[in-house]
Amino acid sequence: MDERVREHAEVLVDWSARVEAGDDVVVSVGPDAHELAVAVAEKLGERGANLLATYSSGELTRAYLRAHDGDFDENPAHELALVENADVYLSLGGGRNTSATADIPGEQRRAYDTATSEIREERLATRWVSTVHPTRSLAQQANMAFEEYRDFAYDAILRDWESLADEMAQLKELLDDGDEVRLVSENTDLTMRIDDRTAVNSAASVAYDSHNLPSGEVFTAPSATEGEVTFDVPMTIRGESVRNVRLEFADGEVVDYDADQGGDVIGEILETDEGARRLGELGIGMNRGIDRYTDNILFDEKMGDTVHLALGRAYDACLPDGESGTDSAVHVDLITDVSEGSRLEIDGDVVQRNGTFRFEDWFDG
Amino acid sequence: MDERVREHAEVLVDWSARVEAGDDVVVSVGPDAHELAVAVAEKLGERGANLLATYSSGELTRAYLRAHDGDFDENPAHELALVENADVYLSLGGGRNTSATADIPGEQRRAYDTATSEIREERLATRWVSTVHPTRSLAQQANMAFEEYRDFAYDAILRDWESLADEMAQLKELLDDGDEVRLVSENTDLTMRIDDRTAVNSAASVAYDSHNLPSGEVFTAPSATEGEVTFDVPMTIRGESVRNVRLEFADGEVVDYDADQGGDVIGEILETDEGARRLGELGIGMNRGIDRYTDNILFDEKMGDTVHLALGRAYDACLPDGESGTDSAVHVDLITDVSEGSRLEIDGDVVQRNGTFRFEDWFDG
Repeated sequence: MDERVREHAEVLVDWSARVEAGDDVVVSVGPDAHELAVAVAEKLGERGANLLATYSSGELTRAYLRAHDGDFDENPAHELALVENADVYLSLGGGRNTSATADIPGEQRRAYDTATSEIREERLATRWVSTVHPTRSLAQQANMAFEEYRDFAYDAILRDWESLADEMAQLKELLDDGDEVRLVSENTDLTMRIDDRTAVNSAASVAYDSHNLPSGEVFTAPSATEGEVTFDVPMTIRGESVRNVRLEFADGEVVDYDADQGGDVIGEILETDEGARRLGELGIGMNRGIDRYTDNILFDEKMGDTVHLALGRAYDACLPDGESGTDSAVHVDLITDVSEGSRLEIDGDVVQRNGTFRFEDWFDG
Repeated sequence: MDERVREHAEVLVDWSARVEAGDDVVVSVGPDAHELAVAVAEKLGERGANLLATYSSGELTRAYLRAHDGDFDENPAHELALVENADVYLSLGGGRNTSATADIPGEQRRAYDTATSEIREERLATRWVSTVHPTRSLAQQANMAFEEYRDFAYDAILRDWESLADEMAQLKELLDDGDEVRLVSENTDLTMRIDDRTAVNSAASVAYDSHNLPSGEVFTAPSATEGEVTFDVPMTIRGESVRNVRLEFADGEVVDYDADQGGDVIGEILETDEGARRLGELGIGMNRGIDRYTDNILFDEKMGDTVHLALGRAYDACLPDGESGTDSAVHVDLITDVSEGSRLEIDGDVVQRNGTFRFEDWFDG
């Protein structure tokens, strides 16, 4: 086993999920994430945690959803009981075909997502962390050779997270103090309110309310979005290629959309429920260890010089106690490149220009 | 997909587990059983049942158990809740190395089995069925080519189960009416009481209290075992080769044992708990579709011309209501060839000689 697989497992279990003896841990294993799962099992054994492995395969999901008549039972008791009783939920992504679910009818998926919303809530109430094992299928999606992709992935994952957390704290402070954010670039001029919201310093650890490994972004939950935005970073969503999505917002809600490619997927997402037409997240990528797009949201949205917005559900960590932000069965991120001709303002002050932050030496306000 | 994979899934879901709409189904997937899992997912979708897939890998188990300090939490809440809330539990075996767990210390495995006994009880309280997907690793264990092995496996699995059930009912009747069984062959002379026990006509369906696919045996739960027995069918148990195990019983308990190979594994099993030194099962193979030993208990113990005995836990279905038979954390089957120089008596009457039953045309009493 590549020693980096063991290091990945150690970062995941210790830094990210803060696993302790006696924790009831669900490990969701993708069909090609076996090797990482073995390393995680070893680490959980060392820590004296309790392991239950589930199998997460797009091909199983596809076969099941396509065969079902669409009248799904709400929150099946066995799966609900499993997540209700879990302390930690580790998702180890890694399949053999990133398009494995491309031909699931949108209506079918929406019905299933809606029927199982309580299970999702309970999963999000655990110390959950999502990561991926670098697979050939992910390398292919990134247009990279397998070995090259593994180097890329581990460079992004095996970082000095404590030091990156210190750097990101500066942007969190600016967002926490601000009331309104404006994002301007070619084809984009969008304003969002963030008055009473708390930004998350997403340092790849539940101790920072951060649930992705790798991470390296600062995000908050915007509201009252107005204006238009173009997402120029190419992505695959639900197995389909999506290019240059344009959204127009009025009074916090999407009122118009189009895309050069994949517009039907965006339309499908927007129809999920009311929350799917609102923003749940404004995220600003700060992981400069990620040096290229690889058509994988887990990496792309963390890349320095990018900003992303998510349609759908907001994370509780960004909201005042007792207040609910956007609620939805979906949370779909879309990314825009801000490396050139762009600025991000907080209450009228430019805090990032062409990807460089005001607290960085080379900032040219 | 080979059409037989879909037929296998259909027999498993409909005939074996009698899955109905609304059933909460756990599907335990081995690392190489993916294709069968996809077919089962499709069938569960068609039936309107609820699917939760778990991942069952010897390599994960090994990594976890070897790393753990051995002081296991009893019946972790998340796994216990999952099986308590499951109606059906389908185990799809199929790994990449049948010796994947060979170097787990016996003490460690025993401690884990004992700590999780309630989880096992709850699993056995579901409509559970164990089957295997024919893999290259199983073909290797059987000394067969992959395609050859697939033909072998599907010949055993895709049978006319209803007609075999009728045939086996005749042996069940003889056992249900009898008080004492005696098995005699070279190096074997064993008597067991079966007075108040009920034999199971194991026709590969929970409707027959039968939980294996393939099946094709009639079994009961003996007691008061006396005498000696030699198991001459070669097997791999817990990843180790076991050859010619000899057990000596007095007053229902193993008082002496040895083996040409794998004696340490047998010793390890016998030390699990008190029940592990007693018999939990007497089984008589009647599936003549299985035409050779393949070093896989699921097939070998069902083969015609064989008798098997299990150390450890008895199945409730064989016991009078409210009465408990042998209780143990283990159930380990051992097999003896009865095709030559053997006889099986019930209350002094020969019911099988050299593999042929008294209700068969060619019986020579």
